[in-house]
Amino acid sequence: MKNICLISTGGTIACVPTENGLKPELNAHQLLELIGYHQSNVSTIDLFSMDSSNIQPEEWITIANAINDVIDKYDGIVLTHGTDTMAYTASMLSFMLAGIGIPVVLTGAQYPAVYPDSDGRRNLENAIIAATSLVGGVYICFGNSLMLGCRAVKTRTTSLNAFESINYPYIGTVSDGRMLALSAPPNTGEFRFSTDIDPRVALIKLTPGLTPRLLDSIKDCDIRGVVVEAFGLGGMHSIRRNHLESIRELMKSNIPVVLTSQCLYEQSTPDIYEVSRPLKDIGIISAGDMTTEASITKLMWVLGHTKDMDQVRRLMQQDLIGELTEK
Amino acid sequence: MKNICLISTGGTIACVPTENGLKPELNAHQLLELIGYHQSNVSTIDLFSMDSSNIQPEEWITIANAINDVIDKYDGIVLTHGTDTMAYTASMLSFMLAGIGIPVVLTGAQYPAVYPDSDGRRNLENAIIAATSLVGGVYICFGNSLMLGCRAVKTRTTSLNAFESINYPYIGTVSDGRMLALSAPPNTGEFRFSTDIDPRVALIKLTPGLTPRLLDSIKDCDIRGVVVEAFGLGGMHSIRRNHLESIRELMKSNIPVVLTSQCLYEQSTPDIYEVSRPLKDIGIISAGDMTTEASITKLMWVLGHTKDMDQVRRLMQQDLIGELTEK
Repeated sequence: MKNICLISTGGTIACVPTENGLKPELNAHQLLELIGYHQSNVSTIDLFSMDSSNIQPEEWITIANAINDVIDKYDGIVLTHGTDTMAYTASMLSFMLAGIGIPVVLTGAQYPAVYPDSDGRRNLENAIIAATSLVGGVYICFGNSLMLGCRAVKTRTTSLNAFESINYPYIGTVSDGRMLALSAPPNTGEFRFSTDIDPRVALIKLTPGLTPRLLDSIKDCDIRGVVVEAFGLGGMHSIRRNHLESIRELMKSNIPVVLTSQCLYEQSTPDIYEVSRPLKDIGIISAGDMTTEASITKLMWVLGHTKDMDQVRRLMQQDLIGELTEK
Repeated sequence: MKNICLISTGGTIACVPTENGLKPELNAHQLLELIGYHQSNVSTIDLFSMDSSNIQPEEWITIANAINDVIDKYDGIVLTHGTDTMAYTASMLSFMLAGIGIPVVLTGAQYPAVYPDSDGRRNLENAIIAATSLVGGVYICFGNSLMLGCRAVKTRTTSLNAFESINYPYIGTVSDGRMLALSAPPNTGEFRFSTDIDPRVALIKLTPGLTPRLLDSIKDCDIRGVVVEAFGLGGMHSIRRNHLESIRELMKSNIPVVLTSQCLYEQSTPDIYEVSRPLKDIGIISAGDMTTEASITKLMWVLGHTKDMDQVRRLMQQDLIGELTEK
């Protein structure tokens, strides 16, 4: 029987009602009790107990280190985590734990596991099954669906199928105590653990009429890299309020700018329209079909390894762990 | 036979290939020629010819005035427009033309209408049919789907079904020359035309680790209102990098902050989790189930009518033209 480590970090799954609203308080052992899991193959670690809205780069490092510390003792890891930033954490862990030889399966719940009709108990059961069935990698198991961590996005605030796999097939489904494989995870090479990141990254989602002064102010905010969610394939204002010029200035100041789309699905590219061509000329970095969550966390990870603009561009446009479909 | 006015504004549908990429050059008459439409009931107006990445509040006012000028002469309007900002334009026109008695149907294409397998010709045919079949209101007709303009989001950069109706049923489908009604558009009351807007609105999409300094810098950017795309139901950092405190400061400076979710589907609310409760206490304005596109354009429209914080809150949380499901 495979040995699994259940690491708890809080989130809705661990929440109990308080007079100020829901608050994460259950530990990993209590979660196992709730699903009536009494087999000895699952050990527990209580890492912290936080609402995932407060999970930040420091917690990502804590989680990655905790996993790395026990990697030789277990055949799989289940990580319970709030849903709000789970896709960001799963993306970052995918880079920090690149090539990990055992599965790390993140799960959580839309409703507290103590509620009678919560999805949390089923999600936890399914995640344990997934962690005993999968090859190495970082995944999210939620609402019966199993997807790559670096391709997941939370798309629903309330429904039980909260996460979608974006621009990548689902890895599998889990139901009735079994995992059905749907597609093979990517080969991510040898294990290369690294928590070196630079969290000084910002996202700018463009809207019509947005003053370029917001982009210009980035230089004064101690921000070292920017992801821009542009219109459609990668469009932005080039007249009147000139976003393009502001981005040119950022790149000149050695702040790499990564171009992605505010459309949830499909790739971005500055290659096709006349208005976007100058973006290519100024050396903007295309996120291709990466999610915003993967783009942000990858840029932090890349900037933790190099500040050289050409190196940053090369790494961002290279598929490292399945996060990007290379052209 | 109903009289329709086709107003062209450029976009991919009107694009022709140039050595610098695609550029919008076809006028409305040429678009009609391309679909072989020779009936006398469709008149044309060439308003401008722009890539919609450059369409800004000034163009919205131009479009709204152009429609208002001819409203008594026609039974319906078809507006061709680039897809990149079409959902923003459709949302803003929904507010500017609130209660309009004739249908205004926006359409466009993912591929230039001059391309042999373009979706543009079918979309234009369908939009003309929709404009002769619908009751008053602002709609998007795209890839056979017909949806409320204030509920539409461009979710795909490349596929032909580029738009989705978010948190609202589709109004209909159009195929084989006929419209099939699926749900009744909302009753939006008497026609009340107004292009009074304040475009000084910004969007901040939160990411884990984002420095609060970006939120703080808004005060120095001549921005009068902010929409925040928070995590999940409305979560944000309250420790270490305190987004909540920065938002409190913005509200104190009389800059209204509207809370929405970065999840594409379903509503946001600061009511449920302990970490979000203080947002309610500081008077943050909930966007409910409005799209980001509707939230941004509605805030511009509301700020064009009042700067009083309580009035802004009341209007933002009130359903004006079907953009919001009131609780």
